[in-house]
Amino acid sequence: MSKGVTPKSQDYSRWYIDIITKAELADYGPVKGTMVIRPYGYSIWDSVKEEFDKRFKETGHVNAYFPLFIPKSFLAKEAQHVEGFAKECAIVTHSKLKNTDDGKDIIVDPESKLEEEIIVRPTSETVIWAMYKKWINSYRDLPLLINQWANVVRWEMRTRLFLRTSEFLWQEGHTAHSSEEEAQEEAKQMLDIYKEVVENIMAVPVLTGTKSDSEKFAGAEDTYCIEAMMGDKKALQAGTSHYLGQNFAKAFDVKFQNIDNKEKYVYATSWGVSTRLIGALIMVHGDDKGLRLPPKVAPIQVVIIPIFKSDDDLNKINSYLQKMNSDFKDKNIRFHLDDRKKMSPGYKFNEWEMKGVPIRIEIGQRDMDNNSIFVARRDTSEKFSININEASNKIEFLLEEIQKNLFQSALNFRNKNTFKVKNYNEFKKIIKRGGFIECGWDGSKETEEIIKKETKATIRCIPFNGEINKLNCIYSNNPAKYNVVFAKAY
Amino acid sequence: MSKGVTPKSQDYSRWYIDIITKAELADYGPVKGTMVIRPYGYSIWDSVKEEFDKRFKETGHVNAYFPLFIPKSFLAKEAQHVEGFAKECAIVTHSKLKNTDDGKDIIVDPESKLEEEIIVRPTSETVIWAMYKKWINSYRDLPLLINQWANVVRWEMRTRLFLRTSEFLWQEGHTAHSSEEEAQEEAKQMLDIYKEVVENIMAVPVLTGTKSDSEKFAGAEDTYCIEAMMGDKKALQAGTSHYLGQNFAKAFDVKFQNIDNKEKYVYATSWGVSTRLIGALIMVHGDDKGLRLPPKVAPIQVVIIPIFKSDDDLNKINSYLQKMNSDFKDKNIRFHLDDRKKMSPGYKFNEWEMKGVPIRIEIGQRDMDNNSIFVARRDTSEKFSININEASNKIEFLLEEIQKNLFQSALNFRNKNTFKVKNYNEFKKIIKRGGFIECGWDGSKETEEIIKKETKATIRCIPFNGEINKLNCIYSNNPAKYNVVFAKAY
Repeated sequence: MSKGVTPKSQDYSRWYIDIITKAELADYGPVKGTMVIRPYGYSIWDSVKEEFDKRFKETGHVNAYFPLFIPKSFLAKEAQHVEGFAKECAIVTHSKLKNTDDGKDIIVDPESKLEEEIIVRPTSETVIWAMYKKWINSYRDLPLLINQWANVVRWEMRTRLFLRTSEFLWQEGHTAHSSEEEAQEEAKQMLDIYKEVVENIMAVPVLTGTKSDSEKFAGAEDTYCIEAMMGDKKALQAGTSHYLGQNFAKAFDVKFQNIDNKEKYVYATSWGVSTRLIGALIMVHGDDKGLRLPPKVAPIQVVIIPIFKSDDDLNKINSYLQKMNSDFKDKNIRFHLDDRKKMSPGYKFNEWEMKGVPIRIEIGQRDMDNNSIFVARRDTSEKFSININEASNKIEFLLEEIQKNLFQSALNFRNKNTFKVKNYNEFKKIIKRGGFIECGWDGSKETEEIIKKETKATIRCIPFNGEINKLNCIYSNNPAKYNVVFAKAY
Repeated sequence: MSKGVTPKSQDYSRWYIDIITKAELADYGPVKGTMVIRPYGYSIWDSVKEEFDKRFKETGHVNAYFPLFIPKSFLAKEAQHVEGFAKECAIVTHSKLKNTDDGKDIIVDPESKLEEEIIVRPTSETVIWAMYKKWINSYRDLPLLINQWANVVRWEMRTRLFLRTSEFLWQEGHTAHSSEEEAQEEAKQMLDIYKEVVENIMAVPVLTGTKSDSEKFAGAEDTYCIEAMMGDKKALQAGTSHYLGQNFAKAFDVKFQNIDNKEKYVYATSWGVSTRLIGALIMVHGDDKGLRLPPKVAPIQVVIIPIFKSDDDLNKINSYLQKMNSDFKDKNIRFHLDDRKKMSPGYKFNEWEMKGVPIRIEIGQRDMDNNSIFVARRDTSEKFSININEASNKIEFLLEEIQKNLFQSALNFRNKNTFKVKNYNEFKKIIKRGGFIECGWDGSKETEEIIKKETKATIRCIPFNGEINKLNCIYSNNPAKYNVVFAKAY
């Protein structure tokens, strides 16, 4: 723990993994590509989860749980879905182990082969729509607004903790509606919720917009997304919300009787965010000393480090802090007193800086003599004394400050690294250097493909309300159909 | 929904499934043996989960998440564990689907066969202990107190919703300690928490005790359990807590350096409760009108049914109720106004009785004339008017009453159906009729096996502090080694 992380500038990937390991956020599991989310990382995910869940419920959604296992045949029902999506997955073929004849090992019992193979869900549209077929009959059953918190599995060759692992945790909302308008509104409402939580709670600024056809979800009519800029200027898709039209309703034959007694296929949406968001959090806020956590998701907002030599010193410090700590409790400030005896204060400073705790308070004899506490901000590294009687108010205010500052710094960074370019040459130069490029696109798949091939940049989104007046395509120079944002992405 | 359930007395299994279906608690999924937990059922599980989670945290535990996938070889590491446990499971052997040559179907790509097969976790001891090996070095790392909320899979042939399905939701606690005493205390502390939540929140009385060797968890030194009596007088194991000794530490070579710098294997516990508890809730409290929910876990505690013909009537009722509803909100009473227009009040009464809502309030013109509301208790079927100005206080009190009454009724039922018997003949008669039998057991595996073979009854637990003075074994007549409880069980 005491050793630092590889500097960002030296090796960004190494820096990222170092932080995850040293801040004890996660670890690789024994099966290749799987992830263990350690208590500190899980606690961050839990706060994020709670914030989303509250908002889902406020907008009329209910939670449910659908099976992990999907019959193989289901995946073939929605043509685009299987084509674009479900090929790389975990396939269950047997249901029993047995001992080898010598009793020393266990093997798969060949007689337990399943009649139909089972897929471990990569996403749950198919199994959920098979159930909706049973549950939806009339317009009175609509809208059906269900969310689930679950694990999903996608077989990944190149994995990276939080960003891309075989198994990850997420929520997936699946809704059914009687009209296209209502379904479209739902898909956009959920995108707004994503933006709100990611920006206001995680302090990660995002762009919102629509995906181009080639980047949208397999089975969707429209995919809306939030996109964030990481510390290495690459983009990360942080959440998506899909308007699915009647595609899944048709694949699973889900009709409802409308108010005029006519049968119609229902309209659908699905939307999800995952533990990938923790990856974004690290990459947007982390620095060369480790993690920097926005106070709203920090498991510990304030760490208090007593500077002491004897038990007697520690007792004095504890009584000195009694009133302040009780005020912290009243204000729901999450604080932790680190009074471990075998570690030096310096060791502790490093450890809690690595873990991204927003505020550190140090208390020694001199602070007590001055009726003060010594405060260090994790975000700016500023250090200063404050009067202990004003501590809880000032700390509360400071936590808000830090929350805002982390967001503003990330936004400034994104703005500084978002460019408009004059021509394709300039485009290529900037993509190579890193950053987002806002430019015109003629809307053709060919242009998109060539740019991707030549620069590795993809259209991250077509921002809502993008201005295309007088804009030309950055590649073909034809009149632009869309104003888009290009970047290299995770 | 309007049709009732099969009477309990006629067909208990049918009655159970009818309630689950008609109260919309759960449904079978498309893959045989899997379960869909519908929003109403999930909401109950969520309250139960929250109550447990709060207590786990209060006792110093933290949540984390470990992978779904376990390498096959891991299961062979703890000998008893694989022997008793992990044979029937879902085995992943391939990682890719592909189109058939005609493009009309998808098949498993034989080239994607995995080098080592992967097991979908039936429980997580093995994968967790593989990680503990990395995380535990010194006594300073202990105790390690981790819990996870997760899905697990056990391949089941005969399934029943909530009680036994291939996949189910649960929590599993896994702790590591520096001494046997501390680990034993932990295992017992968690059992106490289980008892407290199941009794005080779910209103299900439980016996606590130890499992006999043949009934204990594969890999445990001691298994402690809570056992409840269902409405058909059978027993249900509602939760278990295991003292694992050093078995997993040895299997995964997890040692720590103690305070004297000596290496020692750590001591372990694991403990779990699952969605099976929802099955217990149904079977303990349900009646021939449907579910009866203890107020503390009821998603809706009070349903309000306005008796109206016109919109004008409804408006009047709404203004009449304004103050009461706002008081309900202040008191955190979860209420729902069912003002659907196409359904008759009678239809709604049946529906909410089926769903087990503890209190129904009816409001019509007569009630308004009398400045009153009309109240029906789900537990006792009592009906009475109360003054609307006293409504929120009385309803709050009534919810507490109902919570206590459901627990007391279940306890009375269990007491009435728990017997002491004089001899094995009487034993057999009572087991046939149904009920718990408290009696002496000589402690031999043979006796236990013969009784099981002849009567299908098993030792549910050896209650803590059971009195064995002068007791003889019910089968062998030898001096009893334990005072035990026998019953047929789910």
